[in-house]
Amino acid sequence: MLAAIDHVGVAVEDIDATLGLFRDTLGMPLVHRETVAEQGVEAALLDVGDSHVELLQPLGPDTAVGKFLARRGPGLHHVAYRVEDVAQTLGELAAAGLKLIDEEPRTGIRGSRVAFVHPASTGGVLTEIVEPAH
Amino acid sequence: MLAAIDHVGVAVEDIDATLGLFRDTLGMPLVHRETVAEQGVEAALLDVGDSHVELLQPLGPDTAVGKFLARRGPGLHHVAYRVEDVAQTLGELAAAGLKLIDEEPRTGIRGSRVAFVHPASTGGVLTEIVEPAH
Repeated sequence: MLAAIDHVGVAVEDIDATLGLFRDTLGMPLVHRETVAEQGVEAALLDVGDSHVELLQPLGPDTAVGKFLARRGPGLHHVAYRVEDVAQTLGELAAAGLKLIDEEPRTGIRGSRVAFVHPASTGGVLTEIVEPAH
Repeated sequence: MLAAIDHVGVAVEDIDATLGLFRDTLGMPLVHRETVAEQGVEAALLDVGDSHVELLQPLGPDTAVGKFLARRGPGLHHVAYRVEDVAQTLGELAAAGLKLIDEEPRTGIRGSRVAFVHPASTGGVLTEIVEPAH
């Protein structure tokens, strides 16, 4: 059902400052940068093997990531698993009784199709499923 | 330097209850289980693609994971990157000025060699590097 860890999402106060750490110090190539208005974030993707680190700077304090930062400070925000068919997997997770944040897939970074599952039903881990753009 | 996301570590109150979620509902095969006394945890590894989810139940409230659970509740605890040579990478990270938790590699789960970097110098993300057993 879940093919791989697609990325870990990291909440940051200042994406440019944190980019220096991940790109220059940890050596991860920066491969994409995008404002994802629907999710209220400025985002950057860095490659690590076949997966990514996704840095997320909130567009404002009232966004989900803005509230996360205010409550918990910078750090790990979510984990995303790569799937073949996000709609099918979302249906399977719903059928298994998991509490969904997104009842339907929506557009994510780089034209992907994504959906989030509520951490209350995944051991406290905010969980995303991602079908990359074809 | 960092070859892949080796695993994400998830702090749990009850490893058996959470295993059901990850193995049966999310479909991740359970591949290893071990008490890692040095890290104060009962741990389980589940496969997802070429990476893993590592569930961590503390052996007591005074362990690092026990304190994490008391402070933040269950959820994402750390991210681990796979490396070729943990001692060499640790030296490179130290030379780059990162604050280390482990000055020398130590034995991790499944006979791996591991070291932790302090979240204060990695954007709030507790970061592990892992050289799998050969």
